[in-house]
Amino acid sequence: VSYRDLTAHMRRISSLSHVSAIVGWDEAVMMPTGGGEARAQAMSTLDGQIHAMATDPRVGDWLQAAKREPLTPEQQANLREIERGYRRATALPQDLVEAISSAQLRCQQAWRSQRADNDWAGHEPLLEEVFRLKREEASALSERFGIARYDALMDSFEPGMQSARVDVLFSALEQTLPSLIEQVIARQARETLYKPQGPFETAAQRDLGMRLMASIGFDFEHGRLDTSHHPFCGGVPDDVRITTRYNEHDFTESLMGVLHETGHAKYEQHLPSDFRDQPVGMARSMGVHESQSLFQEMQICRGRPFMEFATPMVREAFATHAVAQPLAFTPENLTRLYTRVERGFIRVDADEVTYPLHVALRYRVEKAVIEGQAEVADIPELWHEHMQRALALSTAGNFKDGCMQDVHWPSGAVGYFPSYTLGALIAAQLFEAVHTALPELNAQIARGEFEPLNAWLDTRVWSKGSLLSTDALIESATGHALGTDAFLRHVKRRYLA
Amino acid sequence: VSYRDLTAHMRRISSLSHVSAIVGWDEAVMMPTGGGEARAQAMSTLDGQIHAMATDPRVGDWLQAAKREPLTPEQQANLREIERGYRRATALPQDLVEAISSAQLRCQQAWRSQRADNDWAGHEPLLEEVFRLKREEASALSERFGIARYDALMDSFEPGMQSARVDVLFSALEQTLPSLIEQVIARQARETLYKPQGPFETAAQRDLGMRLMASIGFDFEHGRLDTSHHPFCGGVPDDVRITTRYNEHDFTESLMGVLHETGHAKYEQHLPSDFRDQPVGMARSMGVHESQSLFQEMQICRGRPFMEFATPMVREAFATHAVAQPLAFTPENLTRLYTRVERGFIRVDADEVTYPLHVALRYRVEKAVIEGQAEVADIPELWHEHMQRALALSTAGNFKDGCMQDVHWPSGAVGYFPSYTLGALIAAQLFEAVHTALPELNAQIARGEFEPLNAWLDTRVWSKGSLLSTDALIESATGHALGTDAFLRHVKRRYLA
Repeated sequence: VSYRDLTAHMRRISSLSHVSAIVGWDEAVMMPTGGGEARAQAMSTLDGQIHAMATDPRVGDWLQAAKREPLTPEQQANLREIERGYRRATALPQDLVEAISSAQLRCQQAWRSQRADNDWAGHEPLLEEVFRLKREEASALSERFGIARYDALMDSFEPGMQSARVDVLFSALEQTLPSLIEQVIARQARETLYKPQGPFETAAQRDLGMRLMASIGFDFEHGRLDTSHHPFCGGVPDDVRITTRYNEHDFTESLMGVLHETGHAKYEQHLPSDFRDQPVGMARSMGVHESQSLFQEMQICRGRPFMEFATPMVREAFATHAVAQPLAFTPENLTRLYTRVERGFIRVDADEVTYPLHVALRYRVEKAVIEGQAEVADIPELWHEHMQRALALSTAGNFKDGCMQDVHWPSGAVGYFPSYTLGALIAAQLFEAVHTALPELNAQIARGEFEPLNAWLDTRVWSKGSLLSTDALIESATGHALGTDAFLRHVKRRYLA
Repeated sequence: VSYRDLTAHMRRISSLSHVSAIVGWDEAVMMPTGGGEARAQAMSTLDGQIHAMATDPRVGDWLQAAKREPLTPEQQANLREIERGYRRATALPQDLVEAISSAQLRCQQAWRSQRADNDWAGHEPLLEEVFRLKREEASALSERFGIARYDALMDSFEPGMQSARVDVLFSALEQTLPSLIEQVIARQARETLYKPQGPFETAAQRDLGMRLMASIGFDFEHGRLDTSHHPFCGGVPDDVRITTRYNEHDFTESLMGVLHETGHAKYEQHLPSDFRDQPVGMARSMGVHESQSLFQEMQICRGRPFMEFATPMVREAFATHAVAQPLAFTPENLTRLYTRVERGFIRVDADEVTYPLHVALRYRVEKAVIEGQAEVADIPELWHEHMQRALALSTAGNFKDGCMQDVHWPSGAVGYFPSYTLGALIAAQLFEAVHTALPELNAQIARGEFEPLNAWLDTRVWSKGSLLSTDALIESATGHALGTDAFLRHVKRRYLA
């Protein structure tokens, strides 16, 4: 009966979180600017309500009592996830939670204009306050859970992950990728690229995106595609809201962005419906979530078989352009465009080969600050050094394309960055595993048959929700522990074979 | 300090109501069908949370203590409104509230297909259950507040209104309108009408609607126009969401619908910002709300001066049609189209002259059922008799165009119908008053100068929120008590002069 009371309480929390997700989507996609102030007030009240329910002392009592009840393995896993959430939610004093929330809001709002103005001097004190409070949070969590301070922050995105393991994985990439990048760039310098010339109407881009979304398995009965300044995947599993933005001069950006978010969306749409409103029914971790979008985008959609399938639709969508520019609208040329490797400043524009170096840099820097080996004032210099070493680029004095480019730190998301690259590693392992399981996969993709692939992912990943730990999920789905081998093999196969 | 605690509590309720309004809008406008089940669960949890806060016993304690504190007149009015809401919210036992909510939901869901199937036999037991529970509600409220049972229901839409007064007003209309309608129809039979022939593209209709919305004072910084199956005005004062639907064969329907909802929206957007999140800052009543949409639509936008202003924009929006059909796109013809009077079955399609008879019929029937003078089983026969008398139309056996046409009863909104006609009466009084105050009004409207008109409404109505009672608001704005004279003068002036 305690388990029943507990899950009823979780269901109420899930309902209010549902409402919060939809209203958050609305704010980014629909809300007129003048609605912002009242909305901020409304959302903070709602989030406070959710926090109060999540830290309700009865949850602790129910948890203790439920452990003595006869439960199925799924229910036990749910109990484990509820306890994890409860322990984290109650670990921090309320005044620290509020101080963090208000420091983040201030820093993030200032960041928008400060980044545009390259104004590190103005930004530094605000960011320092955020990191000061995140250090406090890390210390409190570290004491409570007996894990290292940085790990305690990372744990909210990657349950159970340790920086000792991230160090090993990222070091392998940092040692291997720079020379691979050099080889790939030298090789690609000999290729001829035809960049499609626009303009490409937004409506045609949108229709093409939706057609491809439907082809690869997005369920439009349970989701939508809309437009927002920063693309994201929001909503709830029964109603997934993905967004994109359109550039009339380049359809390729939005198209791949839509396919990336569709990877996130398919994961959400296929989470176990039996546990829809319970913690065990939610996505496993941010790394696993990112693995699904990167699997879709990097492993599947940027590959030649997918381009064989998609090019006729692209040509149909932009028929006049395709006729006038025949060399640009071929599977071969589009594949080349979509697998171009370049050393650049900006993480979100980076290709899959240089991307891990952008992530490793951020991981090194944020970890050093949280652990007290560096201060916020040292960040620009550390950034510059890492960029020099990793990609031979200088960010001296260039803050906006350097340490001020991401919203993560201003918004308090310290410990998130590793998830991107953990996701890329998982995606590469899944890709090797599914190729073994489905030897005809490439031919199927080229024909637009995505059901076998989706069924495999559903069984191995999506339908598992949070039943397994991340490590157990990866091992059971791919037969291997998390590592860098599959990813490095993928890079060599795609770019240097 | 009790007043402060009380208003802080109201602010939290207002925040959650804000979220509820936006999510409700999303459900009607954005949500894919598959999201419905999870959404219903989420919204009912949120509404339960709001109800729990509204009936929190501390509210009663704060109210008593706050009455002894020194307060401004506005704060006293706020206290009055808070107390009114608290007394109503706590008047009903929780199990009755839940029984009503679930009976309404069942009846309303069944109604959609039952109406289409003309299935009164299937509908009757469900509607009987709704009315049975509404009778219980009416009895409980009647005892608590010492007012008649029907009045107790009407009070939630029209605070302080009594059926004794409604009887007098509606009797005057029922006695006068039928012969006026006959005269108008005879007179209009001699007019030549040119119906604009489409198709009219949705995008062009939408652009025209938005252009006219902006002209008459809708603030797009604090609101949006979207599409939904049933047009409505939702959202919150800082972010008003109005909707319409488009018919490609007839642009006039959506256009006037948009202007009607804009009337609602302008009221919301101009409610007193000092009391944004307090009961005294909210719209006075549904009748006053309806007066603002009807003032905009009926008094202003269907009049000849507005058509002088709008016709050039209409011609621009549908340029090819306007050139090909010159007689259809004149101010004179459009005014005639928009003031056509016809005896019809359907309330929502009715013109302003026959509309009060549709409303009076519903009022007579629902009042008789609530007061126990009739049963749900009698409704079809009562409907038929009233329609015969009022509009010389038979609804024998025709339930879908008769007593099953409205969603109000299936959804439990018993006591709402009078608000439509009270709104029409108020609108006519406002129109006479503003004409006295602004003798140049017609010329201003024809030139598209709406600022003087909007400023007058803002001062007299919008900025008052719920500071005054409805009666005091009408008297102070128009110089007269609520009555039928101005409305009947308007009908004679517009249709028979």
